[in-house]
Amino acid sequence: MSAAVKAKLRTQQIETPSWAYGNSGTRFKVFAQAGVPRTVEEKLDDAAQVHAFTGIAPRVALHIPWDKVDDYGKLARYAQSRGVAIGAINANLFQDDDYKLGSVTNPDPGVRKKALAHLLECVDIMDQTGSRDLKLWFPDGTNYPGQDDTRTRQERLSEALMRVYDRLGKEQRMLLEYKLFEPAFYTMDVPDWGTAYAHCLQLGERAQVCVDTGHHAPGTNIEFIVAFLLRVKKLGAFDFNSRFYADDDLIVGAADPFQLFRIMYEVVRGGGFERDAGVAFMLDQCHNIEAKIPGQIRSVCNVQEATAKALLVDREALVDAQRGGDVLRANEAFMDAFNTDVRPMLADLRQEMGIDPNPMEAYRRSGYQERIVKGRASGKQAGWAA
Amino acid sequence: MSAAVKAKLRTQQIETPSWAYGNSGTRFKVFAQAGVPRTVEEKLDDAAQVHAFTGIAPRVALHIPWDKVDDYGKLARYAQSRGVAIGAINANLFQDDDYKLGSVTNPDPGVRKKALAHLLECVDIMDQTGSRDLKLWFPDGTNYPGQDDTRTRQERLSEALMRVYDRLGKEQRMLLEYKLFEPAFYTMDVPDWGTAYAHCLQLGERAQVCVDTGHHAPGTNIEFIVAFLLRVKKLGAFDFNSRFYADDDLIVGAADPFQLFRIMYEVVRGGGFERDAGVAFMLDQCHNIEAKIPGQIRSVCNVQEATAKALLVDREALVDAQRGGDVLRANEAFMDAFNTDVRPMLADLRQEMGIDPNPMEAYRRSGYQERIVKGRASGKQAGWAA
Amino acid sequence: MSAAVKAKLRTQQIETPSWAYGNSGTRFKVFAQAGVPRTVEEKLDDAAQVHAFTGIAPRVALHIPWDKVDDYGKLARYAQSRGVAIGAINANLFQDDDYKLGSVTNPDPGVRKKALAHLLECVDIMDQTGSRDLKLWFPDGTNYPGQDDTRTRQERLSEALMRVYDRLGKEQRMLLEYKLFEPAFYTMDVPDWGTAYAHCLQLGERAQVCVDTGHHAPGTNIEFIVAFLLRVKKLGAFDFNSRFYADDDLIVGAADPFQLFRIMYEVVRGGGFERDAGVAFMLDQCHNIEAKIPGQIRSVCNVQEATAKALLVDREALVDAQRGGDVLRANEAFMDAFNTDVRPMLADLRQEMGIDPNPMEAYRRSGYQERIVKGRASGKQAGWAA
Amino acid sequence: MSAAVKAKLRTQQIETPSWAYGNSGTRFKVFAQAGVPRTVEEKLDDAAQVHAFTGIAPRVALHIPWDKVDDYGKLARYAQSRGVAIGAINANLFQDDDYKLGSVTNPDPGVRKKALAHLLECVDIMDQTGSRDLKLWFPDGTNYPGQDDTRTRQERLSEALMRVYDRLGKEQRMLLEYKLFEPAFYTMDVPDWGTAYAHCLQLGERAQVCVDTGHHAPGTNIEFIVAFLLRVKKLGAFDFNSRFYADDDLIVGAADPFQLFRIMYEVVRGGGFERDAGVAFMLDQCHNIEAKIPGQIRSVCNVQEATAKALLVDREALVDAQRGGDVLRANEAFMDAFNTDVRPMLADLRQEMGIDPNPMEAYRRSGYQERIVKGRASGKQAGWAA
Repeated sequence: MSAAVKAKLRTQQIETPSWAYGNSGTRFKVFAQAGVPRTVEEKLDDAAQVHAFTGIAPRVALHIPWDKVDDYGKLARYAQSRGVAIGAINANLFQDDDYKLGSVTNPDPGVRKKALAHLLECVDIMDQTGSRDLKLWFPDGTNYPGQDDTRTRQERLSEALMRVYDRLGKEQRMLLEYKLFEPAFYTMDVPDWGTAYAHCLQLGERAQVCVDTGHHAPGTNIEFIVAFLLRVKKLGAFDFNSRFYADDDLIVGAADPFQLFRIMYEVVRGGGFERDAGVAFMLDQCHNIEAKIPGQIRSVCNVQEATAKALLVDREALVDAQRGGDVLRANEAFMDAFNTDVRPMLADLRQEMGIDPNPMEAYRRSGYQERIVKGRASGKQAGWAA
Repeated sequence: MSAAVKAKLRTQQIETPSWAYGNSGTRFKVFAQAGVPRTVEEKLDDAAQVHAFTGIAPRVALHIPWDKVDDYGKLARYAQSRGVAIGAINANLFQDDDYKLGSVTNPDPGVRKKALAHLLECVDIMDQTGSRDLKLWFPDGTNYPGQDDTRTRQERLSEALMRVYDRLGKEQRMLLEYKLFEPAFYTMDVPDWGTAYAHCLQLGERAQVCVDTGHHAPGTNIEFIVAFLLRVKKLGAFDFNSRFYADDDLIVGAADPFQLFRIMYEVVRGGGFERDAGVAFMLDQCHNIEAKIPGQIRSVCNVQEATAKALLVDREALVDAQRGGDVLRANEAFMDAFNTDVRPMLADLRQEMGIDPNPMEAYRRSGYQERIVKGRASGKQAGWAA
Repeated sequence: MSAAVKAKLRTQQIETPSWAYGNSGTRFKVFAQAGVPRTVEEKLDDAAQVHAFTGIAPRVALHIPWDKVDDYGKLARYAQSRGVAIGAINANLFQDDDYKLGSVTNPDPGVRKKALAHLLECVDIMDQTGSRDLKLWFPDGTNYPGQDDTRTRQERLSEALMRVYDRLGKEQRMLLEYKLFEPAFYTMDVPDWGTAYAHCLQLGERAQVCVDTGHHAPGTNIEFIVAFLLRVKKLGAFDFNSRFYADDDLIVGAADPFQLFRIMYEVVRGGGFERDAGVAFMLDQCHNIEAKIPGQIRSVCNVQEATAKALLVDREALVDAQRGGDVLRANEAFMDAFNTDVRPMLADLRQEMGIDPNPMEAYRRSGYQERIVKGRASGKQAGWAA
Repeated sequence: MSAAVKAKLRTQQIETPSWAYGNSGTRFKVFAQAGVPRTVEEKLDDAAQVHAFTGIAPRVALHIPWDKVDDYGKLARYAQSRGVAIGAINANLFQDDDYKLGSVTNPDPGVRKKALAHLLECVDIMDQTGSRDLKLWFPDGTNYPGQDDTRTRQERLSEALMRVYDRLGKEQRMLLEYKLFEPAFYTMDVPDWGTAYAHCLQLGERAQVCVDTGHHAPGTNIEFIVAFLLRVKKLGAFDFNSRFYADDDLIVGAADPFQLFRIMYEVVRGGGFERDAGVAFMLDQCHNIEAKIPGQIRSVCNVQEATAKALLVDREALVDAQRGGDVLRANEAFMDAFNTDVRPMLADLRQEMGIDPNPMEAYRRSGYQERIVKGRASGKQAGWAA
């Protein structure tokens, strides 16, 4: 079984986000870290390290305008020279004073126009980077009951989405994210998967839902959503991270490794792990207090471990117990895989792939961190706001 | 303005549930109350009191098999003689030992068949009672990860729903309810509005979503769901109740009257209060510790008060402030209505309708409670389990 | 290291609850299971099986009046003859019609008196069974704002607790449990650990807090509470179970094995695993849909696995990384233990203890389940309500 | 009754926070607002407006180092010249790079020393401003399991608190705040009222708990905590704000006016409204998208409205229904007060106090906002980070 699992695991690709390499924080404080990139090229350099040590992180998502450059073709070639490729393009509709009351759902038509223009610009960039996916997360919403009309905002949202969808090329997709709250605190305009799903359905088959694992209400069964979206062919991507409370954006798997396993099981079971399913596995995290590159390596490894366990589930035994209504045996079959220590198998896999069996230690030994701390001592560090 | 609001309020109809008049409780204890009905006819008698004192509760929902009788035509005539009519038919798929692992999603095909037969029987009853609505709440789900296959259960659910939908008459509707948890504690098979919506969409236009106000994850913005479902023409009904924690099934409006107002505002704003919108306003509560008939009267009055406030919102001022992006003024326009004491206006309305201005006191004075306590001293009281 | 860990694990004792062997359910349905005990002696028989197959469940908690007998000395000897002993005495203040508005906090002084008498009776029983611990969970609370006076209820509670505490023998303890909600839905009279702690502090050193792992608000960090209570010497016991949503009472560790590990780590780290710390490890669960005896075996094994992992944490490496502020390395040291598959070590331990390495399979093979299904076919099954 | 209520309301004093007048936001964006103060004196100017229009906001809390000046005596006189006084001193332990892993609980003794020095400096400032209250909110905590030792952090916290407590003058108090999460996402070092209470108890009677209404887990019954803390004489202050989800810091009463009423009722009932009870009523909010001065005015008015309603509760009727166990009547007595429109009474009160009956409109008409927008066009605006 192990060989088959390893073969599957070799095909896994996890996309890291350029913004995870820059400074991040909470509203209380962004703690600066030594060695943080100052340019998009340096972000790509760091992302390339994550790929070099894990072997399964060959793509990097960009965030516009944080990663704006004059020549995206050149940037794509730079990435390639580092061993990685440019992945999804992420729009940013929250860091401009105009967006105080929303972007595409703003009551002011001028602001809506500006927001739409930004989205269309992102598609232009996709044309240049060759990216397949446009990832849309709307910070739009309201803070106070009565502040704006919920339904009218849906109409504005719908209109903007249609305009962007029409602009997409045939090989391009729109990934629509949802989020329960923050930055808006009364209602978000896309608060849950149902809303995202309904809009995607209206748009067409190249509009898909993106599940950010930190964007749900307490108690939400995320793997159910995954299973359901796969069933209706609307699961486009994951934004992986983890949380104990809200959108904590911690290292994926750090808060609840069992939940991550359950999610990956539904992915595997629903066919979402097959390449042609088109499910993109992305990270979206904030390494507020821990070092960023090893933080990303840890996240990639955590997803890989959960995937390995999901692939190890003895489906035959499981289905047999399920069909017989044997609750305890079915749960046991499921837990057997979770309780397995897959780290030795993954160490083997890495050696077969020609990389170090322990990515975290290998990165520590590499001296890269010391080099960037020294080499990037001056200049303006990249962060959420720049 | 008051006259227009009162005219609107006269058209409101709130359906009470037959099971609210019987004993109910928690898993820890069902406390018996003196005077509780022993038959479905006595439940109708009690419901008729609620209508008599409020003037806006002319229909009673039945629960099958709790309210099973030999002759539904006769039952309908009995209701009519009491001044009320039979409303929605509620299926019960949880109180049979066979349903331990689910009803229509049970791994055992025999149990699924039995559950489907019950649903079809409910439609038969609708034909006899002349009910428009079949309300479906599925207690189905799993308690443990791995216990059963989430996706396969969706297929089973979908199949059952299609079979029932096909059986409906042209004037009949299916109302699909969702619930986050309980009685299943890992995942429900219809856990959220998105799932219910997706199934209704697949079924056709006579399948509509029923929003039970106690069935959401903490923090869920229910009025957003209401606004969204009205927008996509899939809001079929409410099951009103209130909660501080889970599905507490308290008197509607008791836990958060402001939320109830916000919900009713979205109903009004989205056209859901118009009779041809087809939105059914139902109560679904448990009066575990308080007297049941006045408990229902209080609930009906609470919905009415919230509706009155929603109708009082100065839409012109509100939209004006919203369009101008004036957050505080928009919120003020909204809160002005909520902060208004509508009880005097409702007392007027009741007098215009020929009923007592204070339903709670009028019921207390009526002597009905004392009569049923005395008159129903013997026999087996109705309750959730009978 | 493994030998030291195994030596520690040999000292672990997990108490199972008599009521876990009887029927249980939700407010919607109690599903009867074949073979369920009809008498307290049969419950002890079943509990003895759990001990026989796990080797670490030598005590059984009783619930009064469910487990009331005429001669507790005789019952204790019966238990002993089966290889187990009687553990904590649990009071029941929720299954009497008088308790509709509370027990010791009821507005009616007569009901308060009755409730207090029951508590004192429980101490009488402890004298006879030789039990050390009186476990108190108060279902008391209110459903509606204004229903009763929160502060007055605290005075009533305090008075009752003092009366019971005064009655305790020198070797006896009171364990005070807390719970966020259910059966009361507005406020419980002991809703959180702070309330239980404050009362215990006022009472004296033999009053200790009992942490039921399913009784917290969403997001509560239970292991913090454990660490804190150990620090202030007020952690008396655990009621173990698990939950995804509310007080689901699932098999402990089923919903979040990582949380269970973190809890057990704080127990070990805070000295709570030492016998003289006086921390009692009890299960409190409902096997609504799964078989009860193997359900308990699974729970005991899950606690044992989590304990083994907690004992495996390399404290030196952990503290070293913590002191150095190395977030990732500290987390790694912690996760290393969690990710270890301890099942082989536990299989070894069991063989050293002379029991089967796989308790679940051994129980299945034993034929006990078939025997009780056949032998207990008639008679009235025990359940929550009887 | 109205006269007595108005007399009580005249004694109410609500303290506004200097930081509410500066820019604030979420981690995504701080939206700058025109007219925002650039100096602490300008903050006092704005706070004076809130007092001028409401008549009940005579004190302003400072935040150190945001409001650091060379001469606090001079600042106090400046405040006085504007008609207000300096209130509580708030320490800030989160906006320095050193505090990445905590302040007084940091693993690094040097950082702990620095944090303690800051706290002692705050007491020095209190001596100069004549402030009674030192408000302590610790952002300390951990993001990852294993990151640091929970118990050791408690020891460090306890030591720092004792050092500060010892430094306090006889008329000075320490107000200890708690918070469930943010900025730490695994555990905070003071996550709940129980933790704050236990530390205050250890410290002595001048250490009191501060309840921030946005710092609880979902579902927490805050008014219970208020009632309990009043009972044990440990309620020192409120930080008022409101939230739908997490620590949203919205205008108090905006999310759940009924909850605010329930809280104020427990304050009144528990004697906390009496001046000698020493309960300080403070606001702690972020006006991210709405104008700040009218935002504060609205908040002050909302607290006042809730207080008026709380004072209007017919205690005799309430207690009578409670004692009789009449759930519905007791709830009615309670709701009668909440459903009353107290705005006319408050308008009267304001006229009696010589201020405009409608503070919001009066502020709008005053031209102050236009003056500060013009007068403060240049310079660096105050905000959370400066």
